[in-house]
Amino acid sequence: MHTDRRTIIQAAAVLPLSAIGASTAFAQASTTTSAAAPAKDVTRTLARYLVTASYDDLPANVRKEGTRTLLNWVGVAIGGSRHETVDIAVSALSPFSGPQQASLFGRRERFDIMNAAFINGVSSHIFDYDDTHLKTIIHPAGPVASAILAFSEMQPVSGKEFLNALVLGVETECRIGNAVYPNHYDVGWHITGTAGVFGAAAAVGKLLKLSEQQMTWALGLAASQPVGLRESFGSMNKSFNPGRAASSGIFAAVLASKNFTSSEAMIEAKRGWANTISTKQDYNEILGDLGKRYEAALNTYKPFACGIVMHPAIDAAIQLRNENKLTADQVERVDLKVHPLVLELTGKKTPQQGLEGKFSIYHAVAVAIVEGAGGEKQFSDRAVTDPTVVSLRSKVVPVVTPGIKPEQVDMTIVLKDGRQLHRHIEHAIGSLEVPMTDKQLETKFSDLADGIIPAVMIRRIMDACWNVESLPSAAEIAKMSASA
Amino acid sequence: MHTDRRTIIQAAAVLPLSAIGASTAFAQASTTTSAAAPAKDVTRTLARYLVTASYDDLPANVRKEGTRTLLNWVGVAIGGSRHETVDIAVSALSPFSGPQQASLFGRRERFDIMNAAFINGVSSHIFDYDDTHLKTIIHPAGPVASAILAFSEMQPVSGKEFLNALVLGVETECRIGNAVYPNHYDVGWHITGTAGVFGAAAAVGKLLKLSEQQMTWALGLAASQPVGLRESFGSMNKSFNPGRAASSGIFAAVLASKNFTSSEAMIEAKRGWANTISTKQDYNEILGDLGKRYEAALNTYKPFACGIVMHPAIDAAIQLRNENKLTADQVERVDLKVHPLVLELTGKKTPQQGLEGKFSIYHAVAVAIVEGAGGEKQFSDRAVTDPTVVSLRSKVVPVVTPGIKPEQVDMTIVLKDGRQLHRHIEHAIGSLEVPMTDKQLETKFSDLADGIIPAVMIRRIMDACWNVESLPSAAEIAKMSASA
Repeated sequence: MHTDRRTIIQAAAVLPLSAIGASTAFAQASTTTSAAAPAKDVTRTLARYLVTASYDDLPANVRKEGTRTLLNWVGVAIGGSRHETVDIAVSALSPFSGPQQASLFGRRERFDIMNAAFINGVSSHIFDYDDTHLKTIIHPAGPVASAILAFSEMQPVSGKEFLNALVLGVETECRIGNAVYPNHYDVGWHITGTAGVFGAAAAVGKLLKLSEQQMTWALGLAASQPVGLRESFGSMNKSFNPGRAASSGIFAAVLASKNFTSSEAMIEAKRGWANTISTKQDYNEILGDLGKRYEAALNTYKPFACGIVMHPAIDAAIQLRNENKLTADQVERVDLKVHPLVLELTGKKTPQQGLEGKFSIYHAVAVAIVEGAGGEKQFSDRAVTDPTVVSLRSKVVPVVTPGIKPEQVDMTIVLKDGRQLHRHIEHAIGSLEVPMTDKQLETKFSDLADGIIPAVMIRRIMDACWNVESLPSAAEIAKMSASA
Repeated sequence: MHTDRRTIIQAAAVLPLSAIGASTAFAQASTTTSAAAPAKDVTRTLARYLVTASYDDLPANVRKEGTRTLLNWVGVAIGGSRHETVDIAVSALSPFSGPQQASLFGRRERFDIMNAAFINGVSSHIFDYDDTHLKTIIHPAGPVASAILAFSEMQPVSGKEFLNALVLGVETECRIGNAVYPNHYDVGWHITGTAGVFGAAAAVGKLLKLSEQQMTWALGLAASQPVGLRESFGSMNKSFNPGRAASSGIFAAVLASKNFTSSEAMIEAKRGWANTISTKQDYNEILGDLGKRYEAALNTYKPFACGIVMHPAIDAAIQLRNENKLTADQVERVDLKVHPLVLELTGKKTPQQGLEGKFSIYHAVAVAIVEGAGGEKQFSDRAVTDPTVVSLRSKVVPVVTPGIKPEQVDMTIVLKDGRQLHRHIEHAIGSLEVPMTDKQLETKFSDLADGIIPAVMIRRIMDACWNVESLPSAAEIAKMSASA
């Protein structure tokens, strides 16, 4: 059934003759039937790529970044698993869950794969500490890894298949995100949820071995379920978004696998996804150099559990602390040259609660010097009320300085003995220019999983993530990550 | 946590320092923090209305229209239940369904309430034969009735509670739809799915007895899950949309009932639903005269299983046929004065399949004269190949005539004996001006359920719908409507 036919069907079906004037009705129908020629075959070409792309096609650096994406995601999913938000989701959805097909990371309960993917997706985003595709601010792993880790417990998936699906899912959502960013994000959409559902559908569709036609429909059903608005930021609803993108993506792929049909051109058609949801559409971002250029290779990971605006200062503080074996009692003053955003967003001088600490450059620098870290533990109620940290934060003096970019900081620690320690940060750790090392990712993982998963098991899970390509079954990772 | 705080949290969390230039980053953050004052308390005021509105507040005409909405919906849900689309949904979702909490209308399977609501919502929209709120082209019952009929099988719901929830759900989605129509629909959204999820969340939230705060969050979680694009029209994806609106609305309400939080102002905030999803926002449509003006009283029902553009001609043909006991062999010619849309949308002269018949004014008029009806059976493969109908359709002569409005038709049937039978239709049956009678709704119901539900049971279901207010348990309707 081609487009003209469908257009006509619909115009005939919906026209509200008796409620609106004739001229209005005619204008609407005319608009409907005189649609401009749409961009061609975007959805189908993407679908064709997805069904044909194999693990063997993946360059080594992309495979490597895939394992880092996986390891980082598992860490944050375990780390968030005891949060009240997850408790609520588990409690609310238990009465409706299907068979206990899949694990919850860091917990004992099991759910059907759609509900498990939702809850794990929520868990992985609670601390805002997950991965980031910086060009779009998409957090790619949430929708995709949540979906395919759950799926892999229901149906056998080899490690190679898994990694390929993970990369393809991330690739799909980031490319679709690129096509509509920044307009789409600026207007109010939480792009992780709106683009993420495509990523989840593509990845699960790959594991379901969909045909090109079925994959086209899966992308269409995904397009029908965008998730998330920026207005929800600051509430549990923010974490809801990657979770729901994961479960709705599975929903799309599963229906398509039984030939539940959709449009052939849902992404690019005149009244399809990109035109409806954004004022910018750059389809070359979706189709250009497929299989050659990999957005999935551009993923980044947060070293610190707070907004990126404070990362340069925390990075500088930790470097100077470690290099000089600094203790708080040595410090007279910390001078910071910063971009205006730092004070605008994180100018809170005397935070009383852990969450408030995430909006205090004074606390962040002080705790980094005292504890040599900026993880979730450094933004706890304990940390912001620690007397040593409280005392030191009053000595932090940020000054807005022309010429300092947001990604930069210039720090001088003045010691009581008169020495001055200086560090200029051009790009903080965790950026594309200075990526976190594998070792740093492991430390982050261990800190997050500490107290939830036994240390010996933490080691095993990390090894399984690094070696995912050689696993006979990717389900091992999910099973090990459930709380014993 | 008030808005400024949330805005700051997010700006800090997402700023991609290393990937975008400093000036871009700053401009984005500045935009984020200098949001214009939004419309005030729309979501919360609506939530307050929903949690306080009681059955006793409903005017008699609204209660009556609610029962008609219910009866019509049950008929179309049963009627669509054997369609391939439903078979596929059942097959695809069976492996993931939770406890067998709720019935499928017209079928034997049982699913958890979210999946049951999805499948019943799909079933009710397959023939495009469900109810229509003509101001917005929303099909109101699909998302709402699907959700609360399933819910009523899980938890006791009296008939009065049920009818109140149905009306409030319809009211919510139609008011929210009014606020953004037509821009929202014009740009490409399938408004039944985007507004419908609010209706389902509100109605289920009412049955869950949510607090005002919880209802505010339920509406926020609903806002995070708009469903459906017009590009999908003509595929199974169109029916997907009311179904998914129903299940996602339940999902929102169930999470909110356990205090899963959202924004306080998800509908009206600067980066909330209405601003993100439409260029028009008229909040008075949502809040004006709540509890006095009822959109739910303006619901309409299709008498004929095809696009509204052909309804005036079918109406005229049936009237003249019945009044004159007309048979096909008496007819020399049928002259029709029509609006241009009729030929533009339904100009197919020789349909070969039932579906094509829906786009043939020639077939529609012929079969109406031969069979005195325009139901799903009159648009079957059987009907379009019936020799008597095929012969008669060649005698139908539609002429585009200036001055004829889309809701009008002027028909003259010239008989072989020289007589001329004339009928001018100002508003077709099924419009707001000439609503279907209860008796006509029953005939439509019976035709749809024939062959699926035994006749004696059809009578009982219709009686239960008419008398829903006196039912101790609304679940009776769903239980009776499952196939034995």
